[in-house]
Amino acid sequence: MVVGIEKAVSSAKKTPAAIPSSDFVINLARGDPTMYQPYWRRMGDKCTVVIPGHDLMSYFSDPGNLCWFLMPELDDAIRRLHRVVGNAVVDDDRYVVVGTGSTQLFQAVLYALSSPHNPDTEPLSVVAAAPFYSSYPEETEFLRSGLYKWAGDAYAFDKDGAYVECVTTPNNPDGTIREAVVNREGGKLIHDLAYYWPQYTPITGKADNDIMLFTFSKATGHAGSRIGWAIVKDKEVATKMVKYMELSSIGVSKEAQLRAAKILEVISEDCVNSGPDKEENFFEHGHRLMSERWEKLREVVKRNGVYSLPKYPRDFCNFRGKDTESSPAFAWLKTKDGLNCDNLLREFKIVTRGGPNFGVDSDYTRISMLSVDEEFNLFLERLAAIKGSINGN
Amino acid sequence: MVVGIEKAVSSAKKTPAAIPSSDFVINLARGDPTMYQPYWRRMGDKCTVVIPGHDLMSYFSDPGNLCWFLMPELDDAIRRLHRVVGNAVVDDDRYVVVGTGSTQLFQAVLYALSSPHNPDTEPLSVVAAAPFYSSYPEETEFLRSGLYKWAGDAYAFDKDGAYVECVTTPNNPDGTIREAVVNREGGKLIHDLAYYWPQYTPITGKADNDIMLFTFSKATGHAGSRIGWAIVKDKEVATKMVKYMELSSIGVSKEAQLRAAKILEVISEDCVNSGPDKEENFFEHGHRLMSERWEKLREVVKRNGVYSLPKYPRDFCNFRGKDTESSPAFAWLKTKDGLNCDNLLREFKIVTRGGPNFGVDSDYTRISMLSVDEEFNLFLERLAAIKGSINGN
Repeated sequence: MVVGIEKAVSSAKKTPAAIPSSDFVINLARGDPTMYQPYWRRMGDKCTVVIPGHDLMSYFSDPGNLCWFLMPELDDAIRRLHRVVGNAVVDDDRYVVVGTGSTQLFQAVLYALSSPHNPDTEPLSVVAAAPFYSSYPEETEFLRSGLYKWAGDAYAFDKDGAYVECVTTPNNPDGTIREAVVNREGGKLIHDLAYYWPQYTPITGKADNDIMLFTFSKATGHAGSRIGWAIVKDKEVATKMVKYMELSSIGVSKEAQLRAAKILEVISEDCVNSGPDKEENFFEHGHRLMSERWEKLREVVKRNGVYSLPKYPRDFCNFRGKDTESSPAFAWLKTKDGLNCDNLLREFKIVTRGGPNFGVDSDYTRISMLSVDEEFNLFLERLAAIKGSINGN
Repeated sequence: MVVGIEKAVSSAKKTPAAIPSSDFVINLARGDPTMYQPYWRRMGDKCTVVIPGHDLMSYFSDPGNLCWFLMPELDDAIRRLHRVVGNAVVDDDRYVVVGTGSTQLFQAVLYALSSPHNPDTEPLSVVAAAPFYSSYPEETEFLRSGLYKWAGDAYAFDKDGAYVECVTTPNNPDGTIREAVVNREGGKLIHDLAYYWPQYTPITGKADNDIMLFTFSKATGHAGSRIGWAIVKDKEVATKMVKYMELSSIGVSKEAQLRAAKILEVISEDCVNSGPDKEENFFEHGHRLMSERWEKLREVVKRNGVYSLPKYPRDFCNFRGKDTESSPAFAWLKTKDGLNCDNLLREFKIVTRGGPNFGVDSDYTRISMLSVDEEFNLFLERLAAIKGSINGN
């Protein structure tokens, strides 16, 4: 069940500044990456795009390319950024497929791996190890496709035959580094690498999986653009994904592609030209913010003793050139005494996404670490107050 | 079968200017509306959008609105344009849902009308009167949904129970004005009004159907933006469509929405302020171009005697304030002697989309009237030469 968006809608109209802080509902159920906005504001005109009325009119972007709706400048910017960061292999024999967010691409992959339809076979089983991204089940199930079906927790999967396993690493919701768990013949893997960027986790090597998904929203914070991309080894899979994109939306907005290309290019350029006398590059900035937030959160959690957080191993980050701690985009909070974690926080007007959405118990809940400063600080304040409040009752 | 895009890809890299005209493959299978580009170029900066790097970052556009990802400025621009043109009822009680082109919205409607899933019932039958838009069958079938299924030509549909009829008016491919043909209990209608704009057909009244689909690509020529919109009477249907958009792509690119809002607003403004001393407004311009092209095409068809074209009644256009002839976005060409029309034209390096894609015989084919001038003129030249060539063989 995807509950984040609806809940967010009901409260997002009220801003922290507009109403007294005690009444304000802090919505941390979704992962709206608004914390990066001040950085981009400081960048001034560097990332501004100007689009005249007669530009970007045709359906086609690059008719000679397998992904005919992908703009060549976005293709170039994606490959360059991965080379600069060192987080994925983007050799010339890999196909880049752009999508309306990685959400659309996830569904394109399911279609690609399960078609053409064979009416004599069962729908392809789709699994992920719990806790798994809360939208996978509903995205897989909502159209009742005969091609594929959600088959739940990968740890419990015991059917023979073909299957697809989604490997999200670092994982959403819990930030852990993952590998496939089923490992049986007939299995195909989707690697969702939305969070494999230096602000969230040490970059320990170039990912080199068959199908890798990335998204602009988590990489840079531009969620409103709805741009995601897949890096795909197999030509036939890439071709079917493009077919899916054609049938579901005849490609991807060019305005969004153009802007993504510009912003990714600026990030690469800043990373390459970084130095002590230069402005902090985007990933260094993001890593610093995230580390500071995690330090504060761990301090509050330690002090009040009601909750626990996962521990992550330090690792050498090739991009930063030093040992680095993980600072995931979500906090995966657990109540120590087995209480319903999401419900407890709601009493204090903190809306999160509870464990059952991710295939695990309700003593877990997922909390976005990417909100604006005011919300994050108010969240810490309320979280710190919970212990006293519980003891007081 | 959607054959247009792939075929287009193979030839679109070659432009008429770049190679000798006798070798050039003219691809008129798709409806890429590139003919409007010179108009928008002449508009200069009037429609230019400038987007700074820190703008449009959140998933949310209007959290208080049922369609939370729709930008208020696009909502306003859509309603204003429909009021100015007089082609659809957009009273305040109607819901506007934005999509990644009307292609995505069509699928959102199918989901909305067929969910929640009842495992005891058959998938909802989806029909359209032949000749029907060639993508409807594949868009309905490709995921083998258990919610809905393609049931073919509405004229031949004789099943009891619930069904959905797609009413495309003016129709793609043949430009005719249509009404529902099944008219039985349990039927729901989708009105695809992509071509109900003054450049293509007389505006005879405000459409007031339950679910109406429009698309930026055919209204203004901006196909690369992937913006479509639905105007929906029923709140529950609109809510489910929004849910579909959330699950399939978490909304619609804001850059594209912003640009569409700007361009639609400029068109409305120009229409309201038109006069003898003013620049031709977009629809007058479009109508003039389309009329000229149709006149030339009819002349060639009449002269060579191999083909026929549909005849359309003149009607009073409320927008233009005068009797007006239809000038559809596609020519629906038929060979008089029963020859395969698409194949015949391919021999002369004219690629079109044959009748069987639209559920009718191969003596029909659909030809885009929206290509650039050079291509359109070359097409006429070759078409004019066909008779002599056939007689000569």
